[in-house]
Amino acid sequence: MRTIFWDYDKNEVKMIDQRLLPETFVVVSYKTHTEVAHAITEMVIRGAPAIGAAAAFGLALAARESRAATSRELLADLQAAGSTLKAARPTAVNLAWAVERILGTLSHRERVGGEGESADDLRQLILTEAQKLADEDVEINKRMAAHGAELIADGDTIVHHCNTGALATVDWGTALGVIRTAWEQGKKIHVLVDETRPRLQGARLTAWELSQYGIPYEIISDNMSGYFMRAGQVQKVFFGADRVTANGDVANKIGTYMLALAAKDNGIPAYSVVPTSTIDLSLAHGGLIPIEERTQDEVLNIQLAGERVTPKGAKARNPAFDVTPNRLITGIVTENGVVYPPFEVNLKKVVLSG
Amino acid sequence: MRTIFWDYDKNEVKMIDQRLLPETFVVVSYKTHTEVAHAITEMVIRGAPAIGAAAAFGLALAARESRAATSRELLADLQAAGSTLKAARPTAVNLAWAVERILGTLSHRERVGGEGESADDLRQLILTEAQKLADEDVEINKRMAAHGAELIADGDTIVHHCNTGALATVDWGTALGVIRTAWEQGKKIHVLVDETRPRLQGARLTAWELSQYGIPYEIISDNMSGYFMRAGQVQKVFFGADRVTANGDVANKIGTYMLALAAKDNGIPAYSVVPTSTIDLSLAHGGLIPIEERTQDEVLNIQLAGERVTPKGAKARNPAFDVTPNRLITGIVTENGVVYPPFEVNLKKVVLSG
Repeated sequence: MRTIFWDYDKNEVKMIDQRLLPETFVVVSYKTHTEVAHAITEMVIRGAPAIGAAAAFGLALAARESRAATSRELLADLQAAGSTLKAARPTAVNLAWAVERILGTLSHRERVGGEGESADDLRQLILTEAQKLADEDVEINKRMAAHGAELIADGDTIVHHCNTGALATVDWGTALGVIRTAWEQGKKIHVLVDETRPRLQGARLTAWELSQYGIPYEIISDNMSGYFMRAGQVQKVFFGADRVTANGDVANKIGTYMLALAAKDNGIPAYSVVPTSTIDLSLAHGGLIPIEERTQDEVLNIQLAGERVTPKGAKARNPAFDVTPNRLITGIVTENGVVYPPFEVNLKKVVLSG
Repeated sequence: MRTIFWDYDKNEVKMIDQRLLPETFVVVSYKTHTEVAHAITEMVIRGAPAIGAAAAFGLALAARESRAATSRELLADLQAAGSTLKAARPTAVNLAWAVERILGTLSHRERVGGEGESADDLRQLILTEAQKLADEDVEINKRMAAHGAELIADGDTIVHHCNTGALATVDWGTALGVIRTAWEQGKKIHVLVDETRPRLQGARLTAWELSQYGIPYEIISDNMSGYFMRAGQVQKVFFGADRVTANGDVANKIGTYMLALAAKDNGIPAYSVVPTSTIDLSLAHGGLIPIEERTQDEVLNIQLAGERVTPKGAKARNPAFDVTPNRLITGIVTENGVVYPPFEVNLKKVVLSG
């Protein structure tokens, strides 16, 4: 079962509600693109590749919502829906990438003589394209995993940050997909799972996935990884990314910078695993990436609906991502191979080779 | 009101139960040294100087518990009680320091002609000595605070780790005492409070203390401090220590190493604030410090009695402290002044100057 998929009987988008795991496994359904945008903002679904697929299916819903009679009217409605979906979260570039890919296909069709195509033809086309994007995500993840698994040695203990597994993608995962493939190749590995405050994607989602796959793991709080590195107990660090800029700076879940810094200080390789759709060659460096700051409540309470652990009236800050400078990144694993420094040169090559 | 004190009416030790703050303010009473040792292990009281005082008062209880008729018999009972108290937690040296200080005074009295002294004389003496140790802690903290406050400039934003305030000491605090004194000197400061997983001493205790003092603060998760440093929003980092070795390595609450590393990477000074009783010249470097590993439950659940956030069957690791190498420490603030590198030379001087 995929993290997100189209229900062809009911013509709606279905996704696993990731806010409720590991306690409860619930699949939710959405019939409108605004519901999907809301689900992205509220992190019913999260993970750069997964929200890219959500945006694509969101456009398929928008096409069905639209009463446009002509393809031109439909395209205008879809552009508005695309703006709504792109605005759901600012940092991961996959949201904009997916919207632009789908709309680009339609615009192209319309330009090159789609005059004869009915709005309904385009409604069908957009769903086909969204499904294709979702299917490709799985295929791309498996290619990334094959490349990345070569970096993992038998017996490695790996620190992993946030969740980058099947739940962060349509299926299989990015960094966790690499770990899963290495495990399936018979490599004995052990994962130290960063719990990933404030929303605990590691403690909740990655631990849950690893349990399913039977891969040995232990959960640590984010501030512990340096301790285990200094104790000589860590051989590799793997994480995903929400946006990689042209110079190899990596925007990823808050805490990645301090993790990569500790890896560097201990001579441990740190890899970001991303589809090329997460590489944004239009930005020169990470300082240009918009960093989302989310509600204080995620820090003041342990779970949004959970126990408050802080004094009444306390304030908090909550940047959801940070930027890890390229000097701390050993390599960037993509579906087209592993990219090493100089990233300015080699990232372009790997994107264009796709 | 002090974090820990002797009730002279009831002849018992009283302390604030720090497991219940900030929700509930409760003072608990103990009549035996084994109860006090248990309270230290369970972190009813925590913070290196505070548990030192707890050990001292624990010995005063042990003296009252003992049925010894002679001073020699009493000393034997106290040595057994001292072993129990020292074993309550392994990392902070203040526990052993306090026990040895109290027992040293008694041994000395016994050796130099205390033959004439009755066991009851010694029972009184030990309480006097424990009270003196507690009183001195407050005086020493204020001297540390005066030295440390000179390092803080008007307008500074300071990252603070764990709790090092009145609650971590008999009163006033170490690193948080510095911040409090700087604030009382009229310096406008802002504190970014590391929540300090797994037990949330920052989010619960430091935030509560800062609320009481009216010092502006915001809580962040431990993995966020690097983000704010890179954004140019942090000027200083302050923390305490559980043990400082002869070369200036600092064992402190887990997460200190990654915090100090991020400070170094951004050119931000990082200070450890400790009474000289926390400096252990008998150990050459931090690799020799025993690091306590506590129950997995502290990581698997958010509060011990709180919500489980991890999958059933999940395992965790839980080292309670880490060692920050001296290369990441800008200065060590003591009651006898601020010590700068080379620590091997200068720590000896500051300890002996006391």
